[in-house]
Amino acid sequence: MNPPLSLEACAARDAADPLAGFRSRFTLPAGVIYLDGNSLGAMPAALPARLDSVAQRQWGQDLIRSWNQHGWVDLADRVAEKIARIIGAQPGETMVGDSTSVNLFKVLSAALRLRPGRRRIVSERDNFPTDLYMAQGLIALLGNHHELVLVEPGEWAPYLDDDLAVLMLTQVSYRSGRMHDIRAVTAQAQAAGALTVWDLAHSAGAVPLALASDGADFAVGCGYKYLNGGPGAPAFLYVAQRHQAQFQPALSGWFGHAAPFEFETGYRPAEGIGRTRVGTPPILSLSALEVGVDLMLEAPMPLLREKSLALTELFITLLRLRLGSEAFILVTPEAPEQRGSQVSLAHPQAWPIMQALIARGVIGDFRAPDILRFGFTPLYLSHTDVWHAVDILSQIMASGEWQQERFQARAAVT
Amino acid sequence: MNPPLSLEACAARDAADPLAGFRSRFTLPAGVIYLDGNSLGAMPAALPARLDSVAQRQWGQDLIRSWNQHGWVDLADRVAEKIARIIGAQPGETMVGDSTSVNLFKVLSAALRLRPGRRRIVSERDNFPTDLYMAQGLIALLGNHHELVLVEPGEWAPYLDDDLAVLMLTQVSYRSGRMHDIRAVTAQAQAAGALTVWDLAHSAGAVPLALASDGADFAVGCGYKYLNGGPGAPAFLYVAQRHQAQFQPALSGWFGHAAPFEFETGYRPAEGIGRTRVGTPPILSLSALEVGVDLMLEAPMPLLREKSLALTELFITLLRLRLGSEAFILVTPEAPEQRGSQVSLAHPQAWPIMQALIARGVIGDFRAPDILRFGFTPLYLSHTDVWHAVDILSQIMASGEWQQERFQARAAVT
Repeated sequence: MNPPLSLEACAARDAADPLAGFRSRFTLPAGVIYLDGNSLGAMPAALPARLDSVAQRQWGQDLIRSWNQHGWVDLADRVAEKIARIIGAQPGETMVGDSTSVNLFKVLSAALRLRPGRRRIVSERDNFPTDLYMAQGLIALLGNHHELVLVEPGEWAPYLDDDLAVLMLTQVSYRSGRMHDIRAVTAQAQAAGALTVWDLAHSAGAVPLALASDGADFAVGCGYKYLNGGPGAPAFLYVAQRHQAQFQPALSGWFGHAAPFEFETGYRPAEGIGRTRVGTPPILSLSALEVGVDLMLEAPMPLLREKSLALTELFITLLRLRLGSEAFILVTPEAPEQRGSQVSLAHPQAWPIMQALIARGVIGDFRAPDILRFGFTPLYLSHTDVWHAVDILSQIMASGEWQQERFQARAAVT
Repeated sequence: MNPPLSLEACAARDAADPLAGFRSRFTLPAGVIYLDGNSLGAMPAALPARLDSVAQRQWGQDLIRSWNQHGWVDLADRVAEKIARIIGAQPGETMVGDSTSVNLFKVLSAALRLRPGRRRIVSERDNFPTDLYMAQGLIALLGNHHELVLVEPGEWAPYLDDDLAVLMLTQVSYRSGRMHDIRAVTAQAQAAGALTVWDLAHSAGAVPLALASDGADFAVGCGYKYLNGGPGAPAFLYVAQRHQAQFQPALSGWFGHAAPFEFETGYRPAEGIGRTRVGTPPILSLSALEVGVDLMLEAPMPLLREKSLALTELFITLLRLRLGSEAFILVTPEAPEQRGSQVSLAHPQAWPIMQALIARGVIGDFRAPDILRFGFTPLYLSHTDVWHAVDILSQIMASGEWQQERFQARAAVT
């Protein structure tokens, strides 16, 4: 289908959208077009009641007994198995808890121990920095016997050799929105005898994933973007079944013990994925995450992907129609199979332009030094939203209102 | 003052209790005497409204803008500085986030790197297991060049030599409630050239702490016990100012970077305690924790400690009065200066006796193999509560009702 280029055509497309009903399942403020669900997903409308029930009934009334009576002890596993369906994992391959960074440390340290003698971790220069930082911290901790090699996007071929321990990539780039083919890239790494660690922060809930059938080794991902789990929500990790028996947990906490409530002095790892757990699970934030994940599971991923691509293509097409192809550099690949659920534009004045957009209610974000980033979450965005977003951006560029002084100052978090 | 041995005397003592007003600041169910605040603190009455506001107004309405508009980016630091006042830290020595286990890994790995060439970590056999497990995982990760030595409580003297890297202790034992003198023990370790790591899980909010003036090196602690931060609340850590410049973060995540939003490829640690941060802070659970911490800060610690000791002494005295001194083995030290805010009793039938107590609304907990554990939280417990708890325990022992079959089956979490 061709993109709907008029407001009327967009409205007609929305009227026929099988996902349109999900918009009302989220609480979004009036007058806002929220194109930042790739940074912080919107709040599910069911969230406040769930939080209140966990607080008042479970914590407030049933107190410590809730570990059994309300299943707190199994909550993390329950949410993990739901996320497993979103990322295409088999049962028993997914864990929820801790942050994406901490989970990366867990799987990367375990992966290195599965490839003794191999010195290199290869990643991309524009990978999300925390992944690079965690790898650097681990390498230093281990005495600098390993090396982190950073390549330009996709340029890892020269390093596919018997010194490669781990190819560590983010599937959908936070900067460019460019998407890798997990199956093909994993096969390349494995052919060299190496392992893969995939960061799915901008993938889970955004694009179809089939980790198990694609042969992925390890993965981590984020709960607060497309899974709508709330600010700083617990993260997840994936360990392929075939690696679990040999998985040595560097972070060997009591919730990863085979029998945590026996209070033994020696660590014995739980069978399977359970050994990737560390401390006491965060019940309030896991409960919030479950609301977002449950909502995501109601929407068929093929429909989500189809609409996501329609929205990003519509944005790109309308942008060129209204502003020409010179106004911004399109950073995101145009080929649909290489595109996640976001569009990134480069412009020397990206910061004040984004501030001017936000002042008009179009919320995207800025990524240093010159990227305007727009996330398109098909669960709660419409074609009409996209049309208005481009319309407002066009007005801002035509009027030059982004040059106003109030849009120049940089805030703490951008 | 002598303990009030009659119900009337307890009521009179409660009427004169300057902390009595705090009881109404918590939501506790009717018919329950909650002696498990050392496992999961009670819910502050102000919590549901705070959670709802963070969800509906901050996340739901202001979305990503809340990082600046509602100070999400500084929330962890703000809560950390409040906890600093509870643990006697100087400003800039405390971090909040992650779990106690993960925080232990951070400080223990950094401490080992500050003592190269020293091979031993010494701890107590009855230390909380996750501390031992995390140390074991770290040692294995580092190639088994270190050794974890476990001694009987207090018996570390033979290891105070130039092979001691870290003396790792929990100040108040989760099992026995026995309390160490942080200043004296730290001095012993430091005299041997070693460092200390203190676990304050059963100390913070329960006993007076003065980490900075006591010369402590590193510490970790828990948000969901006496700080009443909610199930699985974020934990905290402490790094003495003098160690911060040399502190090498093994878990070097983007929130610990000197300039996280510059998205550099190389990790540069933030100045000071900031480098102990790792991933994106959990806003919902940090907000909940702040409610508990704020409430704790309203109560003067000398009054809390005085009442805590009065309650534990009352419990021990009434128990002997009603049941004699043979019915249970008192595991907790009788000397007040060696006692935290709990009383532990050993009994071969500890499990069914605790189940019978819980069925009657007296909630303590069981710790394998034979410990009945009772936490006394002076913020929301009264002398009358203690009287009734002992009364019910006496009835259960006299009637033998703990022998009923329904109290025998073990639950998942105990």
